Amino acid sequence: MIIQFKKPLDQEILTDILASLKQAHHHGVLVENHLVVFDTDTFDFTERQKSAIARLESKQPRYVLSSRAFKPNDTIVKTPHNQIGGHNLTLMAGPCSVENEEMIHRVAAAVKAAGASVLRGGAFKPRTSPYDFQGLGVEGLTYLREAADENGLDVITEVMSVEEIDAVGQYTDIFQIGARNMQNYELLKAVGRTHQPVALKRGLSATIDELLNAAEYIASQGNFNIMLVERGIRSFDGTYTRNVLDVGAVPVLHQLTHFPVIIDPSHATGHADLVTPLAAAGVAAGAQGLLVEVHENPAQALSDAAQQLTPAQFAKLATRAQKIHELDGAIAEEKKAIVKAAVSEDNHESHHSATNPDENHD
Amino acid sequence: MIIQFKKPLDQEILTDILASLKQAHHHGVLVENHLVVFDTDTFDFTERQKSAIARLESKQPRYVLSSRAFKPNDTIVKTPHNQIGGHNLTLMAGPCSVENEEMIHRVAAAVKAAGASVLRGGAFKPRTSPYDFQGLGVEGLTYLREAADENGLDVITEVMSVEEIDAVGQYTDIFQIGARNMQNYELLKAVGRTHQPVALKRGLSATIDELLNAAEYIASQGNFNIMLVERGIRSFDGTYTRNVLDVGAVPVLHQLTHFPVIIDPSHATGHADLVTPLAAAGVAAGAQGLLVEVHENPAQALSDAAQQLTPAQFAKLATRAQKIHELDGAIAEEKKAIVKAAVSEDNHESHHSATNPDENHD
Amino acid sequence: MIIQFKKPLDQEILTDILASLKQAHHHGVLVENHLVVFDTDTFDFTERQKSAIARLESKQPRYVLSSRAFKPNDTIVKTPHNQIGGHNLTLMAGPCSVENEEMIHRVAAAVKAAGASVLRGGAFKPRTSPYDFQGLGVEGLTYLREAADENGLDVITEVMSVEEIDAVGQYTDIFQIGARNMQNYELLKAVGRTHQPVALKRGLSATIDELLNAAEYIASQGNFNIMLVERGIRSFDGTYTRNVLDVGAVPVLHQLTHFPVIIDPSHATGHADLVTPLAAAGVAAGAQGLLVEVHENPAQALSDAAQQLTPAQFAKLATRAQKIHELDGAIAEEKKAIVKAAVSEDNHESHHSATNPDENHD
Amino acid sequence: MIIQFKKPLDQEILTDILASLKQAHHHGVLVENHLVVFDTDTFDFTERQKSAIARLESKQPRYVLSSRAFKPNDTIVKTPHNQIGGHNLTLMAGPCSVENEEMIHRVAAAVKAAGASVLRGGAFKPRTSPYDFQGLGVEGLTYLREAADENGLDVITEVMSVEEIDAVGQYTDIFQIGARNMQNYELLKAVGRTHQPVALKRGLSATIDELLNAAEYIASQGNFNIMLVERGIRSFDGTYTRNVLDVGAVPVLHQLTHFPVIIDPSHATGHADLVTPLAAAGVAAGAQGLLVEVHENPAQALSDAAQQLTPAQFAKLATRAQKIHELDGAIAEEKKAIVKAAVSEDNHESHHSATNPDENHD
Repeated sequence: MIIQFKKPLDQEILTDILASLKQAHHHGVLVENHLVVFDTDTFDFTERQKSAIARLESKQPRYVLSSRAFKPNDTIVKTPHNQIGGHNLTLMAGPCSVENEEMIHRVAAAVKAAGASVLRGGAFKPRTSPYDFQGLGVEGLTYLREAADENGLDVITEVMSVEEIDAVGQYTDIFQIGARNMQNYELLKAVGRTHQPVALKRGLSATIDELLNAAEYIASQGNFNIMLVERGIRSFDGTYTRNVLDVGAVPVLHQLTHFPVIIDPSHATGHADLVTPLAAAGVAAGAQGLLVEVHENPAQALSDAAQQLTPAQFAKLATRAQKIHELDGAIAEEKKAIVKAAVSEDNHESHHSATNPDENHD
Repeated sequence: MIIQFKKPLDQEILTDILASLKQAHHHGVLVENHLVVFDTDTFDFTERQKSAIARLESKQPRYVLSSRAFKPNDTIVKTPHNQIGGHNLTLMAGPCSVENEEMIHRVAAAVKAAGASVLRGGAFKPRTSPYDFQGLGVEGLTYLREAADENGLDVITEVMSVEEIDAVGQYTDIFQIGARNMQNYELLKAVGRTHQPVALKRGLSATIDELLNAAEYIASQGNFNIMLVERGIRSFDGTYTRNVLDVGAVPVLHQLTHFPVIIDPSHATGHADLVTPLAAAGVAAGAQGLLVEVHENPAQALSDAAQQLTPAQFAKLATRAQKIHELDGAIAEEKKAIVKAAVSEDNHESHHSATNPDENHD
Repeated sequence: MIIQFKKPLDQEILTDILASLKQAHHHGVLVENHLVVFDTDTFDFTERQKSAIARLESKQPRYVLSSRAFKPNDTIVKTPHNQIGGHNLTLMAGPCSVENEEMIHRVAAAVKAAGASVLRGGAFKPRTSPYDFQGLGVEGLTYLREAADENGLDVITEVMSVEEIDAVGQYTDIFQIGARNMQNYELLKAVGRTHQPVALKRGLSATIDELLNAAEYIASQGNFNIMLVERGIRSFDGTYTRNVLDVGAVPVLHQLTHFPVIIDPSHATGHADLVTPLAAAGVAAGAQGLLVEVHENPAQALSDAAQQLTPAQFAKLATRAQKIHELDGAIAEEKKAIVKAAVSEDNHESHHSATNPDENHD
Repeated sequence: MIIQFKKPLDQEILTDILASLKQAHHHGVLVENHLVVFDTDTFDFTERQKSAIARLESKQPRYVLSSRAFKPNDTIVKTPHNQIGGHNLTLMAGPCSVENEEMIHRVAAAVKAAGASVLRGGAFKPRTSPYDFQGLGVEGLTYLREAADENGLDVITEVMSVEEIDAVGQYTDIFQIGARNMQNYELLKAVGRTHQPVALKRGLSATIDELLNAAEYIASQGNFNIMLVERGIRSFDGTYTRNVLDVGAVPVLHQLTHFPVIIDPSHATGHADLVTPLAAAGVAAGAQGLLVEVHENPAQALSDAAQQLTPAQFAKLATRAQKIHELDGAIAEEKKAIVKAAVSEDNHESHHSATNPDENHD
């Protein structure tokens, strides 16, 4: 059961309610003016207690803050140069790794020209083997930041551990949490505490519910600036694609959560010549952003050589993605219809006026 | 090694070559004017033998007749009302099962109005449990045929066993082979012998190579009228979708094979509200057809109640799919580029003039 | 709901009950003195109707004849030389394919000496590619039969299509249904009609419920001589093993069904040096039989070269499997405990006296 | 290529070799007296350089320190009360979570009596939802330590983040790295630096190579006190078991690595009545330890209620596991045979005398 209190919160009644619930051995979590109670769907409140309650949702949630029930409207994640989510399509592009200063400047200019508004690039790289190239570290971050600033782009880059958050946070606009760290709960809580935008990648065999619970760890620290990234799941046939892009996850997530959904077609396929068709598929399914690996000379790349696009290939991808997205007045309408099916109108209203996490957390 | 002989075939030299190969303990298969030799990449031919050979391909094939190496150009499967494949988008729609005479007539009219040109409907139904509704059988086939004829549509329906092929073949334009029968080799060979169009569904955990080898069983009987259907693969998370649509299979198949690729978004998702986004994704990735379940009153359907669209929902899907497809002058170009990467131009030329399975097998 | 009638069946009351159910639009299947009703858990019977009913099980069954609820005691499949199931451990061994007359005689003698009592060998081979060796056909069957008879062994061999059943049935004691045909429903029904023993292999990505429903297709034709074969399932890592042996399926199946469970460690792993540890694991988990590929000279085999054992390796495997099995007074006890947890004692009693499919269907 | 230097290391020649390799643009990693060079299989050494080299292994390694090529003999992980690995079978048991002081003392006494020599118990719990019980933390660790000491047991407990390592390390003998953290590389390196025993759980969809590379991250910090835990992998059928125990991973790992292999049948199945058969299967396949959840009153457990055994059930499991293990003089022999196939005898000899990571790292 989710109890939504009237604002401003009456602390005295709240304390009274918490005491009543505790006495009945119920377990609850307070998030702003919402009290989430996990082990019951009903409670016999006194009249005085009821007077402080705006709304009661009786469904038992699998996750709370990430759900459409909690926040029916799309979350828009605001960065210096972008509003990610809703009806926008945000293109994020750049090399797998920042390899040196010159290359990242040239790639930044090229992806900007092609329509990207976020620059990606790895400085701390998670590698399966400890002997593989692990990235340039802070040096790479400075190059990445300068290249982005020079071209009016936001930065997205991966953070791999709690210790690195401060350092990485100085240079990036968006923290990327990698697929292997999707359930690294200490890291999730730590980026949650920063209140900075986070792009959370789905784990290789993570269910949709596990992905949304991972987002919940971030949101439970008061950080709603979350976008979810589908980057391919592990399957039985690795002959022609590295992973299988679960394009169905896009409309499923739109039904369940208000957070923006981004597609990473580069890691989903692992082959440059498959990236554009899958990017197109992702946008057609309703994705609100693309995260694409672009390199000046993919064959010479220090990592992910097979899957990076040239700037020219990315420019074509961007054009095609934009065209499909523009068709989708249709998509936007349909998505709204999907959401309406899950959320009742009045709920919409009361909720919107009472708590808007976008406003509260910027 | 694939040996392509000049036409007309010089039977005497052919016999000589076969004898030479046999003497060297090599194993070969003759398909029209192609001899596929599986256990060697080279052979020391005499000058006289060489004089009958148009071209030699030295790569060891995983499959032959299904490959772009064997036939670089797209196969177009011709039916009374359609040319399936190439740059065309063919919409196939209708109920999971033919439930009675009236319903199939009404659905046929509705899907025709919405843009479909093939009517689907199950008469012999493969069901997990022997106690579930197994279809109306031949009675259902007659209704299906009449409803299609009345509306100028082709028929596609499943055939489940060798014994049923004659009966089903009298009523249908396209045999559907279900996912569970993808490696029922006797059935594949038997529909191969009919030379009628076949829609081969990918098995629930079939690899791409297994799918193409299953097509090879059909083609090895001289039947090139094959289309391949991606209908979702089995994965680890069945909470929100029945299967995972492997949209990446579309461009992968376009690289490897000349056969048309169809998407079945209904079985891929199992939920009506996800069918349209996944149909759009499939078309954006380059699919040349859609196979969609449509029912007048899905909630009352005798099978697959959750995943069938209403005629109105299908009409919207059709409009959106067509729009995305029309954008794809871009797709067509790109697909050509993909194919070119795999096939050299001269190969293209010589091959095209020498053997065109479309012409030979109609 | 499963209605168990008193014996002898009162045909008049039965007709009356069927009419009442039909009038209420319920759908039922009569199996011996059991009426399985799929669409309701309760029914308002008249007193006269109740007088003919021995027992009512209100749970909605996913499958009926295959379930412990229908038959609490283990099924023992009787063949000329074996009683498969219950507390017995049956070793089945032989080459992947019968390659010629001499080899199968020598292998038969060797596996007999090592403790096997069933001879396996493929004569009709399902192969992924139509160009691979497809087996010797009927010629292979005659060699297999002679080699088995000479050594006092039963024969198990695969049947791939309805048309082959008569021919194969003349030579074999046990029909093997391959993993690719697990949901070839026409084939299942056809071997069901023979009433001969059938070894049903689990499909590459078949769920336990799908496997049991496939068995149900066979049993629904009155054939209870079924054994279930776990042979590895498809998974995400094919680097070191061809498939993943789902050893947990053994105790799960013992809870759900009365049919014997056999392990095929050869196809599960694909590598000879892993076959023995997995055979041991299967027996330790409670498997009632092993199906193992053995070849005189594995490196020269025409198919499955990598996974066949030499006769000497098989002899070691057999010794170890027998020792683990003998330990398992413990297993037998525990299995009984598992079954008891699922089946109530009185059910046990009444059921046992009323219907014993072993007796009825031999 | 792996270069093994004679001992004591001639620093001057080493410097010279490193310079030569660098000049030729090769990339190497020095581990004790081994230099691992990743990008070439051969090198043209001078005579003087050769004089310092004891042995050259030319195979390109996927991982080094974890491989049998690097260390042919089994690693024995020594703890105060155990020698884990080799021919020993170590039983580790205890509750999912330490819930209070009394319960852990009673469970410790019970599992000790049944044959366990390591006490497990979660104090910091990784939970899918941030709102689930997260463990007692340091308070739980103190109870766990006291209960173990009172009964002469070692402690194993999970560490979830770099920050917790010092605190957890004061109380535990073995760090457990959970499946979700298998590729949390910062955590792996940090436990590597402690040189304390680590039980590394395989990720839900981690390949064998990924598991061994994760171990490599720990070993690369000089910590060889590693055991690998197979705890079930994610698959397509979650109806009857939570995961699928990949029992084939046991002999595969014995071929590839010298580290001990432990089976966790509790998480593999998720159901108490399946734990014992799978524990037996794991031991029969050659596992050197079992990690089993045991609770006084499973139905009342704060987490994992369905899968914990009672002490009485665990006692039976322990007896059966020991019996199967004792049979396995056979197993031990066979494992030796497997290892021999991968490692040449002389390699064995020279290696053993030159570097024994067990001796160096205790």
